Amino acid sequence: MRITIIGSGNVATHLAAAFKNAGHAIVQVYSRDLQNASLLAYHVRAEAIDNLDQINAETDLFIIAVKDDAIETVATALAPYQKLIVHTSGATDLQVLLNHSQKAGVFYPLQTFSKTKEVDFNTVPICIEGADEHITSQLNELAYTVTQNVYRISSAERKTLHLAAVFACNFPNYLYYLAQQLLAEKQLPFDLLRPLILETAQKVKEYLPADVQTGPAVRNDEKTMTDHLQQLQEKPGLQQLYKLLSQGIITMDNDG
Amino acid sequence: MRITIIGSGNVATHLAAAFKNAGHAIVQVYSRDLQNASLLAYHVRAEAIDNLDQINAETDLFIIAVKDDAIETVATALAPYQKLIVHTSGATDLQVLLNHSQKAGVFYPLQTFSKTKEVDFNTVPICIEGADEHITSQLNELAYTVTQNVYRISSAERKTLHLAAVFACNFPNYLYYLAQQLLAEKQLPFDLLRPLILETAQKVKEYLPADVQTGPAVRNDEKTMTDHLQQLQEKPGLQQLYKLLSQGIITMDNDG
Repeated sequence: MRITIIGSGNVATHLAAAFKNAGHAIVQVYSRDLQNASLLAYHVRAEAIDNLDQINAETDLFIIAVKDDAIETVATALAPYQKLIVHTSGATDLQVLLNHSQKAGVFYPLQTFSKTKEVDFNTVPICIEGADEHITSQLNELAYTVTQNVYRISSAERKTLHLAAVFACNFPNYLYYLAQQLLAEKQLPFDLLRPLILETAQKVKEYLPADVQTGPAVRNDEKTMTDHLQQLQEKPGLQQLYKLLSQGIITMDNDG
Repeated sequence: MRITIIGSGNVATHLAAAFKNAGHAIVQVYSRDLQNASLLAYHVRAEAIDNLDQINAETDLFIIAVKDDAIETVATALAPYQKLIVHTSGATDLQVLLNHSQKAGVFYPLQTFSKTKEVDFNTVPICIEGADEHITSQLNELAYTVTQNVYRISSAERKTLHLAAVFACNFPNYLYYLAQQLLAEKQLPFDLLRPLILETAQKVKEYLPADVQTGPAVRNDEKTMTDHLQQLQEKPGLQQLYKLLSQGIITMDNDG
């Protein structure tokens, strides 16, 4: 497929590389910042542009991987080419594209991307949605060229998924940060916790989280929880968080 | 070394197997439940006992891996043998053993263990503390027979570590659970999130959490956060948690 990448951030970078590796031709990379566009374009042997007037119409697919609030503006500029347009956003309804073009879809890779870290794209779930069955089937085929995990997900489902991803990724990373800060205060190295963090994530590769919950709260070990809260007495924010999460764990079985 | 294991839970099971693999002799395995003792003893070719009167004095080390509130009782029963006694608890002061014997120490493997899941013990950090330098050095040597990661950690430091481990392991697992529940309500499979969870943990193998924080809060993306809170409107507990964690992420740089 001939693919044009709009954007040069983390998602754009990883998607462009995955498509290139899968044998697709990347026609152009657009970014408002020509240097960013050039850097990515160089890697995937595409032309770099920093103006949507320079779009090459000889393409099959526009992939919009820009900030959520810029998607609609970009879609307006691309609609006249009458090519398939998809966005890559977890939080954005397909309707935002449909307002401008019927040849629209969503191609949402559910992963946390950093520019500096390689990702094995083959295991990344890609959530696709098409304006019609023909488009969905095209996107399905495209997705399977870069990953084994393809899911047909409606805009409503994707909203839930995006929220759940905050709980599964962004919030745990923040808790890692809090743990690291607690250690740093006592000059203890974060390396002490790294194997624990990894094993905690690896456990839920096979099990459901409820089945592998450990710690004082799930044992209702009040002595340890009281001692922990005592240690946090000068950190009211952390105390509140500790209480809220522990209370949640204690009543976990009743939620399910 | 000749080692006697007191306990047959997760820590006892994984430690006994690691010692056996490293070439140590497991003399006996004690559990109040003879069947549990026998199961573990069979695997490590030891004698199973369910009564502390049956202790074989021909051993070099007692490893107490029982519930925190049972450690002291067990220590009282073992003290007369005048052998080295260590406990494996993150939350328990060395003093609890010193009340009964001067030949005491701590051998705390900082990992989350489940009986059904193998752990690569070689990467598990082991935190050691001895009543004197001779004991610390003995425990240091022993720890290096089963892992590459050995740390000398005082009882005061271990308290901090144990608290930090709750933030790094128990609480993230609970957030995985909440994410899984949000998906389950919409009949979406947890498999969608598993690669994300794993990658989030793998990122902090190399980076500090603050450097790889992603999501709407760190971007201060109010539109997305408002939408997420809207989705949680019938779940006040989750709303409160979402606000507290997001607020923490927004002010993250100021904490460090």
